[in-house]
Amino acid sequence: MPDRYILLGHGSGGKLTHELIEELFRPILLPPDISVLHDSTPFVIHGHRLAITTDSFVVDPIFFPGGDIGVLAVNGTVNDLSVSGAKPLVMGVSFILEEGFSMEDLKRILTSMREASDTAGVRIVTGDTKVVNKGKCDKIFITTTGVGVIEYGGTISPDAVKPGDLILINGPIGTHGTAVMLSREDMEYETPILSDTAPLNRLVSVILDTSGEIHCMRDLTRGGLAGALKEIATSSGYGIRIYEDAIPVQEEVKGVCEILGLDPLHVANEGKLVVFVSKEDGEDILRVMRSHPLGAKASVIGEVVESPSGMVTMRTVVGGERIVDMLAGEQLPRIC
Amino acid sequence: MPDRYILLGHGSGGKLTHELIEELFRPILLPPDISVLHDSTPFVIHGHRLAITTDSFVVDPIFFPGGDIGVLAVNGTVNDLSVSGAKPLVMGVSFILEEGFSMEDLKRILTSMREASDTAGVRIVTGDTKVVNKGKCDKIFITTTGVGVIEYGGTISPDAVKPGDLILINGPIGTHGTAVMLSREDMEYETPILSDTAPLNRLVSVILDTSGEIHCMRDLTRGGLAGALKEIATSSGYGIRIYEDAIPVQEEVKGVCEILGLDPLHVANEGKLVVFVSKEDGEDILRVMRSHPLGAKASVIGEVVESPSGMVTMRTVVGGERIVDMLAGEQLPRIC
Repeated sequence: MPDRYILLGHGSGGKLTHELIEELFRPILLPPDISVLHDSTPFVIHGHRLAITTDSFVVDPIFFPGGDIGVLAVNGTVNDLSVSGAKPLVMGVSFILEEGFSMEDLKRILTSMREASDTAGVRIVTGDTKVVNKGKCDKIFITTTGVGVIEYGGTISPDAVKPGDLILINGPIGTHGTAVMLSREDMEYETPILSDTAPLNRLVSVILDTSGEIHCMRDLTRGGLAGALKEIATSSGYGIRIYEDAIPVQEEVKGVCEILGLDPLHVANEGKLVVFVSKEDGEDILRVMRSHPLGAKASVIGEVVESPSGMVTMRTVVGGERIVDMLAGEQLPRIC
Repeated sequence: MPDRYILLGHGSGGKLTHELIEELFRPILLPPDISVLHDSTPFVIHGHRLAITTDSFVVDPIFFPGGDIGVLAVNGTVNDLSVSGAKPLVMGVSFILEEGFSMEDLKRILTSMREASDTAGVRIVTGDTKVVNKGKCDKIFITTTGVGVIEYGGTISPDAVKPGDLILINGPIGTHGTAVMLSREDMEYETPILSDTAPLNRLVSVILDTSGEIHCMRDLTRGGLAGALKEIATSSGYGIRIYEDAIPVQEEVKGVCEILGLDPLHVANEGKLVVFVSKEDGEDILRVMRSHPLGAKASVIGEVVESPSGMVTMRTVVGGERIVDMLAGEQLPRIC
């Protein structure tokens, strides 16, 4: 690969990220039996199924309405484990700090990380700190790694998705990305939009505790709803059909996205998940989700169809049908 | 803490790092039962003892004689688990890349990470990639997190150290730091000095497989031999006495350190460990270490004494005695 360089889009969670994974990370770094499209990876120790996930957080700005880089880092890792059916137990946290970074800000971030980990019931047990010269990183980067135990007996995976499955979401999309974007642009808006960052492990617990047939879950992050659905459609080999009028978006978020020229389907979330469930169990799971504060606005947004294979289509409000794809590049860099 | 800022020394692994840990990380972030001075943290799942460790790597330059940032990241995490008596099993890797970073260089780094993980017998099973705008990080930062299983029945900890214990080292100190420093300064030197980066898990295995009473192990990293011994002396409450003429340092390393004004005791290593062993078992363990390629030049460098408590003293070549302390600040920033 002479003369090729990393682009911002390679970190978007979209098409370029997938190309990078398929071209370099998967063939060189990973053992052949590891699937990289899952939120976390299962492994077995002494016959017990565990899961591990790791993520770096580079969000800019580091403080935004509704959260900060620390709470995002904790919740992101909790959620990656949760949607794989793993109960998060312990977490490692590594900091890269820029020389001159404010100790007050560090203290504030550590405090919200501790609150977030207490809320999620996960223990931060190990860590590391590196400091680089001024100008060699941007304030603070945080990498969190979580280990959890898989107690759920079923298989939660795009492979388990079947035509007819209903797709449920726990609430309105696009709020995290919009909140960060607004604070970055220093835009004033009459109703403040707060990031939806939240730990989803307890919501996932109540879902898995039902007798419902849960086939797949995915938390929506930098690739937005579109990215998550496209990944699942591609992996499963089936099609996904969603209904524009069924997809919840806060009015304020819709307004800001229109002004900024963003499509909420592609905007990042940090406290939202989609659940793929057998048609028969859809109503039950929806009721259970709505009984939890983080699922109060849950709704059915679509279904799995036989074809077109690997594609996501959306019936628009005006009755048309359009293809929903991943973004090739980066809509909002450094959103998480 | 108004008007206080992060200094390079806060990432040195020395006194400022410890102050930061004691002032912020331990009281705010960590549960009270977690000891932060260990290389990794044990946790229990379904009655099985596991260990987790995480570290970020920001070494500059990213390629240096004898290794690169990737192999360092893998070996560093393997070694942190190993010296805690844990067998490394799986690893997560998270990359923060600078926009414009060369794909060729990334490929080279991934290749050496895979080679290093194969050599150590640990599986890289999950990962993440973030990209930040040009100028917002320095080429590439890598965070590795490892999980291992603790099969050793005894306690390996500074708490288990006793007066009379012999202190063994597996070979000459200061080579990694000197190699990186030389390549950073673009200094030509007649005999190339190669980083000693190596995975210590198999050497640790043969040590633990003996019937010897192993009390504590520690891999020597950014704080150098001095930092590691001072930490163990402080934690154990006993004193440590080392003998200058017994501490192995390559002639070339000694020469470069003299030119650069560095003390090899404080220079970083990435493939060296100290082993604290009961006096009676010292000879046996030394023989076993020497039978392994990574311990061929093992030697006894000192012993644990009743007092002065928490202090490291060195009998110098000329027969004097001096106190060996951690560095307050940063001798060589971004050495790992």
